[in-house]
Amino acid sequence: MYRTHTCGELKIENKGGSVQLAGWVQTVRKFGAITFIDLRDRYGITQLLFGEGLNAQLEANPLGREFVLQATGTVSERSNKNKNIPTGDIEIVVESFSILNKSAVPPFTIQDDTDGGDDLRMKYRYLDLRRNAVKKNLELRYAVNRSARNYLHEQGFYDIETPFLIKSTPEGARDFVVPSRMNPGEFYALPQSPQTFKQLLMVSGYDRYYQVVKCFRDEDLRADRQPEFTQIDCEMAFVQQEDILNMFEGLAKRIFKDVKGIDYTETVERTTWEEAMWNYGNDKPDIRFGMKIANLKFPLHVFPSKKEHLQTSPLGAGGGDGNATGFAVFDSAETVVAISVAGAGEYSRKQTDEITEWVKRPQIGMKGLAFIKCAADGTYKSSMDKFFDAEKLKAIADAAGAQTGDIVLILAGNEERTRKAISELRLEMAKRLGLRKNNEFKLLWVLDFPLFEYDEESNRWVARHHPFTSPKPQDIEVMINNDPTISNAAKYLEHPYAGIKANAYDIVLNGNEIGGGSIRIFQRELQEKMFAALGMSKEEALHKFGFLLGAFEYGAPPHGGIAFGFDRFCAILGGSESIRDFIAFPKNNSGRDVMLDAPSTIDEKQLEELQIKTAVK
Amino acid sequence: MYRTHTCGELKIENKGGSVQLAGWVQTVRKFGAITFIDLRDRYGITQLLFGEGLNAQLEANPLGREFVLQATGTVSERSNKNKNIPTGDIEIVVESFSILNKSAVPPFTIQDDTDGGDDLRMKYRYLDLRRNAVKKNLELRYAVNRSARNYLHEQGFYDIETPFLIKSTPEGARDFVVPSRMNPGEFYALPQSPQTFKQLLMVSGYDRYYQVVKCFRDEDLRADRQPEFTQIDCEMAFVQQEDILNMFEGLAKRIFKDVKGIDYTETVERTTWEEAMWNYGNDKPDIRFGMKIANLKFPLHVFPSKKEHLQTSPLGAGGGDGNATGFAVFDSAETVVAISVAGAGEYSRKQTDEITEWVKRPQIGMKGLAFIKCAADGTYKSSMDKFFDAEKLKAIADAAGAQTGDIVLILAGNEERTRKAISELRLEMAKRLGLRKNNEFKLLWVLDFPLFEYDEESNRWVARHHPFTSPKPQDIEVMINNDPTISNAAKYLEHPYAGIKANAYDIVLNGNEIGGGSIRIFQRELQEKMFAALGMSKEEALHKFGFLLGAFEYGAPPHGGIAFGFDRFCAILGGSESIRDFIAFPKNNSGRDVMLDAPSTIDEKQLEELQIKTAVK
Repeated sequence: MYRTHTCGELKIENKGGSVQLAGWVQTVRKFGAITFIDLRDRYGITQLLFGEGLNAQLEANPLGREFVLQATGTVSERSNKNKNIPTGDIEIVVESFSILNKSAVPPFTIQDDTDGGDDLRMKYRYLDLRRNAVKKNLELRYAVNRSARNYLHEQGFYDIETPFLIKSTPEGARDFVVPSRMNPGEFYALPQSPQTFKQLLMVSGYDRYYQVVKCFRDEDLRADRQPEFTQIDCEMAFVQQEDILNMFEGLAKRIFKDVKGIDYTETVERTTWEEAMWNYGNDKPDIRFGMKIANLKFPLHVFPSKKEHLQTSPLGAGGGDGNATGFAVFDSAETVVAISVAGAGEYSRKQTDEITEWVKRPQIGMKGLAFIKCAADGTYKSSMDKFFDAEKLKAIADAAGAQTGDIVLILAGNEERTRKAISELRLEMAKRLGLRKNNEFKLLWVLDFPLFEYDEESNRWVARHHPFTSPKPQDIEVMINNDPTISNAAKYLEHPYAGIKANAYDIVLNGNEIGGGSIRIFQRELQEKMFAALGMSKEEALHKFGFLLGAFEYGAPPHGGIAFGFDRFCAILGGSESIRDFIAFPKNNSGRDVMLDAPSTIDEKQLEELQIKTAVK
Repeated sequence: MYRTHTCGELKIENKGGSVQLAGWVQTVRKFGAITFIDLRDRYGITQLLFGEGLNAQLEANPLGREFVLQATGTVSERSNKNKNIPTGDIEIVVESFSILNKSAVPPFTIQDDTDGGDDLRMKYRYLDLRRNAVKKNLELRYAVNRSARNYLHEQGFYDIETPFLIKSTPEGARDFVVPSRMNPGEFYALPQSPQTFKQLLMVSGYDRYYQVVKCFRDEDLRADRQPEFTQIDCEMAFVQQEDILNMFEGLAKRIFKDVKGIDYTETVERTTWEEAMWNYGNDKPDIRFGMKIANLKFPLHVFPSKKEHLQTSPLGAGGGDGNATGFAVFDSAETVVAISVAGAGEYSRKQTDEITEWVKRPQIGMKGLAFIKCAADGTYKSSMDKFFDAEKLKAIADAAGAQTGDIVLILAGNEERTRKAISELRLEMAKRLGLRKNNEFKLLWVLDFPLFEYDEESNRWVARHHPFTSPKPQDIEVMINNDPTISNAAKYLEHPYAGIKANAYDIVLNGNEIGGGSIRIFQRELQEKMFAALGMSKEEALHKFGFLLGAFEYGAPPHGGIAFGFDRFCAILGGSESIRDFIAFPKNNSGRDVMLDAPSTIDEKQLEELQIKTAVK
């Protein structure tokens, strides 16, 4: 060992002790004949005092930032104590030292507020990782990993490793593939998830499986997507949805407790997918605050459970069905939706203009914003004064749940875009009002997703979750007994498949989906029907998933599972929206590791051995 | 939940309780109007009793092996108790049941002694995994995983994930590569190990790192090699070799304790590489038994520490240097080596013939075997009676450490082959004598490996461990100050580099290398010299490892680490030599997953998107 202690542990109790430390030079300060050095390691910072006697050696071997230093000396009480660090009561009076390694001047400062830009930090990631801000993220990540494993272990789950070199069966996203040298012309694929393997393990009777495992998707990277990412992947046999929800909200609560010291004792709220879309405009609502959406017109699509709304909406049914209000913008819109923002009834013209500009940004794409201010004196001031009398304004404000002193913000237009816009506006207003607190955590289960989505391009059904998700028990007959073909694309919503609900669930934290799963199909016949519904021929299904269909022949038990997006879960727990800061060696938005300079060209010999050629256009 | 209890937990204390079980039908036995079914799950087996009242339902829905069954009933005391299973005191008197899933007749029996051959078991791996024998292996694997993580956590190590899509820098083995769609013509590689990343983490100050991580090598598969395998990968900063040895023999001991209940309290033995080669003929000796090799002639190569042996060997120096014994086989041999097998002095002609045939097998490749039987009456009977008198035979037997009643087995020939053969013969004789016990575990550290090996094909040095291994401190100057070029290939042993020892260590368990590591180079200059010594140009070194050389500029601390071969460690703990039985979904010797039928051809569209073409010869 190059040290007797770390830089984070010496206290006043160690006074007089002879110690040896090793670490990095954080700062060098000279006061006359005396030199102070802050020595840093993973555990903390300790002040070293170099007296006059070491000056000659210091001058012969000048120390700089990030030099690796080993120092031997005596623990001494500081005259000038630093209350901000655990070792602040002491310093080491150095008797001898040696430089274990020198350092060039780092390209950016190793501090919380670094002067390094993103590109520079990624290129020198090994220096960026020294910064306390990044170190804390990786420590949190490990704490989450450890906590999850402990919980799952205690619940009787086994960590069973599944293979990385598997078969390419691209369904949704693209596979990364790996040419096989020993089987020329053939390829492995890297797993997008261990989905089929964990199902096989259930067929094999392992009952409770987990893995913290890398997965791979060759997608065009949006901001904050990584080609390789980590899942906490779990599966259980002999369970129903309720069992899974209980088990895995337990996991989330345990992580809150272990990692953040939070007792999450409240019941985890649940909502259906329809209710979430109706109330929040999206399927991963942030419920740390209310501000539910008021649907002022009955929307054309989905929401069969909201039929009664048609009678009660202040603006009537949507889709220009003649239920005219006299305000063309509303009358011609498929959808009119509102939120009521508490305490913003006194917003100035400048403020409402600014919000109007915000919703007109291309990312949001609205043509404008209508509003009603609910003044303290009970009157209503609105951008629609010309079209609506006070009674109508009150009716709209009431429908939006507005109180005196609130402002009602209203968007109108195409159903999908408008719903998305009001959902974004809701989050934006909450952010402005400080309602999205980093240190407040609220979980939500979203249930009863549609099993299928309609894909316009290929005029067929696609699996919303994945092809192994079971329909709700009551919908199995509907699925088996109907032909999946969509004869009239415009009326796909009238097809019986559109109404089939999945035995699937997402777990949402602060407006982010951190996990999702489903009860699986475990009967060969139903699985074959699912493949057929997705447009797969019998031959194709057998070629790709013959092993799974085969497994279902030999006593497959009912089973289901979930996968948590580990990177995202960590980021949210760390109070960040960016997963990159929680990955030791992330890739950039072009999938490059700029530190390694990977991917890169490979030797001609490697290509020859693999019997492949590049064919760059 | 489909059950109130598992099939492994009900005891006599539960008598009278109303329970629900779910599991697989292991056996169906009919006794008149009564049917007994053994129901199996991961946790055990419970006997179900179906009375007369259920006969109609049983006849309408006949149960077969591996059907998935849910049964409700009452716990009842068995008249005919089974002491061999924990639930043997009770049975469930079934009130109602339902078949959750049927099963076709499995292609082999789900029993410890299955009738399934290797190929069938691999094709239906999901059924093979149901067998108790395989299940126990995976449970052991998880126990090792858990134990290792607990120990490392308690020692302050962090699990930090390193990337899987990295840069191709093939040194020893071939890389698996992954074409990048977003960077056409470029490739990622899958890591052969996280070596450079864990070193960067040390440069970043993380101090103690571990991972249980998949690694990939595209090698021609020998029996019991897998293209993807798992390592327990560890690294520490500010350590010397002694610190690593202590820390990781601690890990092994903890695993013995947690997984096997063994208190490994003895000191872990240590040997140098030279001593291991000298005494056992290989660098991973099984030291559960003695039977050390006697070197009867001084070998031409290596072993500088054994110079004195030249004077004392009964056969003198090797290499036909005129030190003739009159026995041409010995005189013309580079090497003559012997082992003394205890208590085998009475072997019959048939037995010695059989051993002679064994050493002549092509895998061993010897021309013959000489022996000396040390009879109880103090006389010596030998296959070399014609050439050696009693005195000489005694001298040889004494040199081999033989006692009365032993047999001395002697091999002669080319140095490398003969040494390998005697090493194999030693293991074989130990096996025959029952000295290689599955439930006895003996660790050994092998130290002081040569840093370089000579590669005849390219007439250059290759790194024995890997290019990041540090030479012993006293050899650094030798390495820096000498030109690595080998001018005379025949005399490569005289080059100063041949004598350089590595700061490297292997940990050996029962004759299997279960881990290895080294203290690393952490100075840019020395690392550059190493790359140059291996024949890498400056440009190539920078292209491949520029990030590491760069990192060494910014205050790299002294560091070192180790990687355990997790699959092999588990296999040995489980008393097996085959790693395949300890991997949930292994590949066969052609790198195929016969269950998935992977690798396989992929769609033309996938190749087009990746901008590559197959070019199969």
